[in-house]
Amino acid sequence: MRLAELSERSGVSTATIKYYLREGLLPPGRRITATQAEYDEEHLRRLRLVRALIQVGGVSVASAREVLAALDDDSLDHNERLGTAVWALPHGRPADPDDPATETARQRADRLLELLGWGYGPLTDVTPPAHAMLVTAIATLERLGYPCTVEDLTPYARALGQLAVHDLDLVERYGGTADEQVEAAVALTVLYEPVLLALRRLAEAEESRRRFGRQ
Amino acid sequence: MRLAELSERSGVSTATIKYYLREGLLPPGRRITATQAEYDEEHLRRLRLVRALIQVGGVSVASAREVLAALDDDSLDHNERLGTAVWALPHGRPADPDDPATETARQRADRLLELLGWGYGPLTDVTPPAHAMLVTAIATLERLGYPCTVEDLTPYARALGQLAVHDLDLVERYGGTADEQVEAAVALTVLYEPVLLALRRLAEAEESRRRFGRQ
Repeated sequence: MRLAELSERSGVSTATIKYYLREGLLPPGRRITATQAEYDEEHLRRLRLVRALIQVGGVSVASAREVLAALDDDSLDHNERLGTAVWALPHGRPADPDDPATETARQRADRLLELLGWGYGPLTDVTPPAHAMLVTAIATLERLGYPCTVEDLTPYARALGQLAVHDLDLVERYGGTADEQVEAAVALTVLYEPVLLALRRLAEAEESRRRFGRQ
Repeated sequence: MRLAELSERSGVSTATIKYYLREGLLPPGRRITATQAEYDEEHLRRLRLVRALIQVGGVSVASAREVLAALDDDSLDHNERLGTAVWALPHGRPADPDDPATETARQRADRLLELLGWGYGPLTDVTPPAHAMLVTAIATLERLGYPCTVEDLTPYARALGQLAVHDLDLVERYGGTADEQVEAAVALTVLYEPVLLALRRLAEAEESRRRFGRQ
């Protein structure tokens, strides 16, 4: 397909597509004349992923390039490519290492992951950025006067553990080939975040209505 | 306590506290001399909430002021104050009403909420902003080539419904008075979001390792 059709099918303007091409976020099309190139379904899929990362995930162009590099790295196996791509997503600012709340939070996070049997924390020497994100979040709760224990966190972790099974089922459904699966995994990680946060606010409103609402 | 102690106990610089006072995000202290004022535990609690909203929630000063106004509105009952305060939080951009994906997404969101028996969607004439946030998220999934059905969304909604019970249990534990409970509810809504997103990424990495990892 030509640029115009790629734009129409993706909902991304031709100016933005040209920008992504210049920035290396999209592989160049197959040149057919001096001024025209031909794009295929793979371009469309990749364009949708870039859109998901940048528009919904708030990922910078530089980080998006890193995510895509991990997707395209043939030296990694399926699980490693998926992990590396998700690791390149932004994870917020790390916790202040000089704050005593950070060390307390790290111990809680590690204890929680050990309890769940998830292969992180003190059990391995590779720490994913989501671990630092969790430590920061727990430290912030502590510092702002809402300390949370491992027991407080456990139901959230167990629920998300169960939802991860659905997440990966969706990934396998959307992605036929291994490449498509890795792309889908990254896209769904980002695209389901607002779904979860919206459903949580609706669920809390419903629970608040049940507990405190006028009858 | 004096400004210096309020700063030390909250971890917020005196310059930032003065800024919040000028912007009306903190009520003025009790003046004791021409240049000094006295602050109490309520200031400390409010300051922590403002910190949670602005630093973690990415809430603007104007939105934070709106959240706080809802907290302080004595004409509302407990449930209404809580709901109104959470409604004033940012909920992202609304979906494009001219995009056909938006209408499809709205129907799915309404069908889901009806199925769950949550008091929103077509059943009431007041639509919370989290509903628009959900519609936008579903429409974006659709537009980016990952259409999701009501059945896909149901496990997420059910899990978050169960977690909302824990959320409100925490709110009741942290907040002694009704005022404190409403403050805690808003703070925890914001502060647990990164906890959930971090746990989700860790859970997905664990599930991916189980399915696709080298044995």
